[in-house]
Amino acid sequence: MTDTIPGATGAPLPPLSDADFRLGAEPFTHERRAEVLDRLEEHLERHRVRMLGYQVNLSLDGHASLGRFLRHHINNAGDPFVDSRFSLHSRWLERAVLEHYARLWHARLPEDPARPRNDDAWGYVLSMGSTEGNLYALWNARDYLDGNALVRDEISGEASCRTTYVRAQHPDDNPNAYSPVAFFSQETHYSHIKAMRVLDIPTFYDLGGSLYPGQCPIDLSGTGTRTYNGWPLGGVPTTGGDEGPGTVDIDALVPLVEFFAAKGHPVLVNFNVGSVFKGAYDDVETACARLRPVFERYGLVDRTVRFDPDDPERTSVRNGYWVHVDGALGGAYAPYLEKARDSGLVKSAPPVFDFRIPEVSSIVTSGHKYPGAPVPTGIYLSRAGSKLRPPSDPAVVSSPDSTFAGSRSGFASLAMWNHLARLGEEEQLRQAAESLHVAEYAAARLRELSATLREREEPWAEDGIEVGHGDHALSIWFQQPRTEITAKYTLACVPLSRDGQRHDYSHVYVMPHVTRDLIDELLTDLARPGAFDRTAEEGAVRPPLPGQD
Amino acid sequence: MTDTIPGATGAPLPPLSDADFRLGAEPFTHERRAEVLDRLEEHLERHRVRMLGYQVNLSLDGHASLGRFLRHHINNAGDPFVDSRFSLHSRWLERAVLEHYARLWHARLPEDPARPRNDDAWGYVLSMGSTEGNLYALWNARDYLDGNALVRDEISGEASCRTTYVRAQHPDDNPNAYSPVAFFSQETHYSHIKAMRVLDIPTFYDLGGSLYPGQCPIDLSGTGTRTYNGWPLGGVPTTGGDEGPGTVDIDALVPLVEFFAAKGHPVLVNFNVGSVFKGAYDDVETACARLRPVFERYGLVDRTVRFDPDDPERTSVRNGYWVHVDGALGGAYAPYLEKARDSGLVKSAPPVFDFRIPEVSSIVTSGHKYPGAPVPTGIYLSRAGSKLRPPSDPAVVSSPDSTFAGSRSGFASLAMWNHLARLGEEEQLRQAAESLHVAEYAAARLRELSATLREREEPWAEDGIEVGHGDHALSIWFQQPRTEITAKYTLACVPLSRDGQRHDYSHVYVMPHVTRDLIDELLTDLARPGAFDRTAEEGAVRPPLPGQD
Repeated sequence: MTDTIPGATGAPLPPLSDADFRLGAEPFTHERRAEVLDRLEEHLERHRVRMLGYQVNLSLDGHASLGRFLRHHINNAGDPFVDSRFSLHSRWLERAVLEHYARLWHARLPEDPARPRNDDAWGYVLSMGSTEGNLYALWNARDYLDGNALVRDEISGEASCRTTYVRAQHPDDNPNAYSPVAFFSQETHYSHIKAMRVLDIPTFYDLGGSLYPGQCPIDLSGTGTRTYNGWPLGGVPTTGGDEGPGTVDIDALVPLVEFFAAKGHPVLVNFNVGSVFKGAYDDVETACARLRPVFERYGLVDRTVRFDPDDPERTSVRNGYWVHVDGALGGAYAPYLEKARDSGLVKSAPPVFDFRIPEVSSIVTSGHKYPGAPVPTGIYLSRAGSKLRPPSDPAVVSSPDSTFAGSRSGFASLAMWNHLARLGEEEQLRQAAESLHVAEYAAARLRELSATLREREEPWAEDGIEVGHGDHALSIWFQQPRTEITAKYTLACVPLSRDGQRHDYSHVYVMPHVTRDLIDELLTDLARPGAFDRTAEEGAVRPPLPGQD
Repeated sequence: MTDTIPGATGAPLPPLSDADFRLGAEPFTHERRAEVLDRLEEHLERHRVRMLGYQVNLSLDGHASLGRFLRHHINNAGDPFVDSRFSLHSRWLERAVLEHYARLWHARLPEDPARPRNDDAWGYVLSMGSTEGNLYALWNARDYLDGNALVRDEISGEASCRTTYVRAQHPDDNPNAYSPVAFFSQETHYSHIKAMRVLDIPTFYDLGGSLYPGQCPIDLSGTGTRTYNGWPLGGVPTTGGDEGPGTVDIDALVPLVEFFAAKGHPVLVNFNVGSVFKGAYDDVETACARLRPVFERYGLVDRTVRFDPDDPERTSVRNGYWVHVDGALGGAYAPYLEKARDSGLVKSAPPVFDFRIPEVSSIVTSGHKYPGAPVPTGIYLSRAGSKLRPPSDPAVVSSPDSTFAGSRSGFASLAMWNHLARLGEEEQLRQAAESLHVAEYAAARLRELSATLREREEPWAEDGIEVGHGDHALSIWFQQPRTEITAKYTLACVPLSRDGQRHDYSHVYVMPHVTRDLIDELLTDLARPGAFDRTAEEGAVRPPLPGQD
């Protein structure tokens, strides 16, 4: 397992290998340790300056000054709003970061964080990135929808000592009342599928394919969508399919949700804001306006739940839906694009996705993607009234175990705070507008190149390079070039289906560290003859994707 | 939410508050940001030098040199043994760390990591600490025991596209064949109860109390154990109860496991090595020797599982038990105590817990506890043949999504590697032996103090201070002193039940940064008149624990 990359001069770096770092009974000498760490740093530096393919901001110089905190273990174990006995924490910074995002996403700030109202913001800074936040959101959603007790539901007696997850007893006329079904689009991040499996929440296509074969309420003929007994595998179709911008098709989502709501199921909907491949923004506001009458029609608004197995007369009133927004990428900058539009810096902005929409229950964003951070981190925010009751209350921490992790990274909160403290709102607006302008520049240049290659009937690109770019997206995708180029710029490569045929794509993500000069350098490489000739490469010519209709 | 602590001179530090860090539309000036970060560092430094109460090593000076890597985002997304397209990674270091722990825990190293044999070690470096590792282990255990497909089970057709977790179809003669039941002791970390809830795995006491009231096979009379229809709430009793050393009572565990094995259930057993409060070491070797005939008697060894819903004739052979070792604290140093015993540095060592025991399926340890790290991290290791099949295979990462997180902290692997590279085996032995010696010194001094207080009939401690210390444990517990003292040394405080009465305890954890001088300083404070007088403190006199028999 080695790694050879072209250096700035084109000469390959000496490759790093497992042998350089192997540990034995003897310690590394100071010199040898310094040498291999220097080589690691050089490797990172060389790749960093040309990284174009992934949604991580690499402008991280502001974090170097935090090195002095590496002498400390900072741990925010427990709830961000309840200080614990563990003194080496950074909760003051964590709360400042949460308050910032609550304002940015138009959540109501608690007047008294110790006694929040149902609609007040509650959340925490993530130690593991948006996967942790999505898992936590969907766990909370599952237990909210299947009738477990919430923090606001006082429980007592034996039920308070039992730890196993207990679904509420369903009413006689609806066996599905506490069996949530999950909806998400085909552009959704793979962590959602993992979360469904961990949490044992059925997806609409698994349940539909198993229990209602051939009854899918949407017409998929001619779309090339992979199906399971007529239901679209992998999620709700996106507008225009693989050739479209990657936004969820609301005309498909609404009848799918209605199908299961009519069968009595509660509903868990995930939306993407800055989706994983196309950087697409689901129109959460319009979708919720269309779903609202469905929720009302099938009794999913303010329904009465008997949450206490020991006392069936005790009830709590809550909704039969949960709307989660995976804003891993877009949650951190789309609000600034909206402000930038209002102040004339950009022409238009992505649709509203935040707590201004009454149905939105929870939002997640990553700290290491758009803002940039040395470690994976992020933000989870929800409404305090729908917070789940922690399964146990560890006296040793003396703060409620209301988050996903036990130990929680206090350094992550420090890094997030430091980033936000350095940038004011004006700089955030400027940066978001500039990222969008560079993305539009990159899309325009790639389209020009595509036209040129088509004109000159370039072998391997005689039809152009299929450039795609959705409105306001920071991702631009195009035909996958040769490995020298994908490696030089660390481009992600993903096979998509187009007219039932497999097409290999790469994408560029314009994060704040990406300049017009770097885009120009990529374009120069892509314009060279043979840049798209992958015939000699393993896997370049592959059969169509399996299971294609 | 403020924080006042006594400084070295006894004068209080200016307290940090939320207002110091609040973010607004304007950025912090460089000076103001530097000032509040200086105050945070001062807060951390003042508490660090006297921290005695939690199991985190604060000797972290070796990490300060890693500050230069904070300019980079290092991400090991995907499998540690399959390099991805994402170039900014530290997998070479991650693999070195995993190989180190595989050797330390006597796991077989793969000759070819790309094609491991069933018994070869596989694992990864954690981004979120042992909670992540325990969740991942128990998720893998659940899907292994309830008949999902493993990596080694080739699946095809529609089943390969479905993402919902599907239990295998049980045989006609055993409806419980794929319904695992979880066993763990009452000293188990609260993250396990959380994991059971997230994963919807029933605990033996929930299932026993619900389905088999009054049939618990162990006698709990007179033990003061809280029960649910006769079953011990919170876990398998520990030897000697709250006054004992905190090790699982094997004589209770074996009949409890046998009860459910006889009903046809597969079995998930968790053991603790360095438990959360008492630092106790379950005797995994003896327990497994006693469980082995139970597993054999009830057909849980090499049973045949029909894992493919589309082809019931296809089978895989695997065990009907999973033994997980939560070595969050002890996994990192107990092996060195064993070596230290073999070389005469210490008189005895904790029992064997690792992959030398054939039943052990997975082990977790924390990086930020005994080794020490600036961020939460840790190690998960298992046997490759029981690895679960990832629910999806994200092309964009181009490495299997075989871990819990999406983005995985490459900085955590760097910190773990740097720690191990600096210390050789000799230094590790010396450090582990020294920590144990200081713990024994602390226990002896606290027992002396207890006798003195009893002799001089000290008010509030006329019966002494109930010092407890298990064999080889790094934790020593005793009666909770006044808040000035628990705050000065950041002591954890936990109420326990003793003869049915609530007693408040504190504990000291002797981690590598703890010296005899610091223990002496604590003892001087504890010997002052009134050190245990908590009458003026909120919560000092509280009713017995609820639900007590």
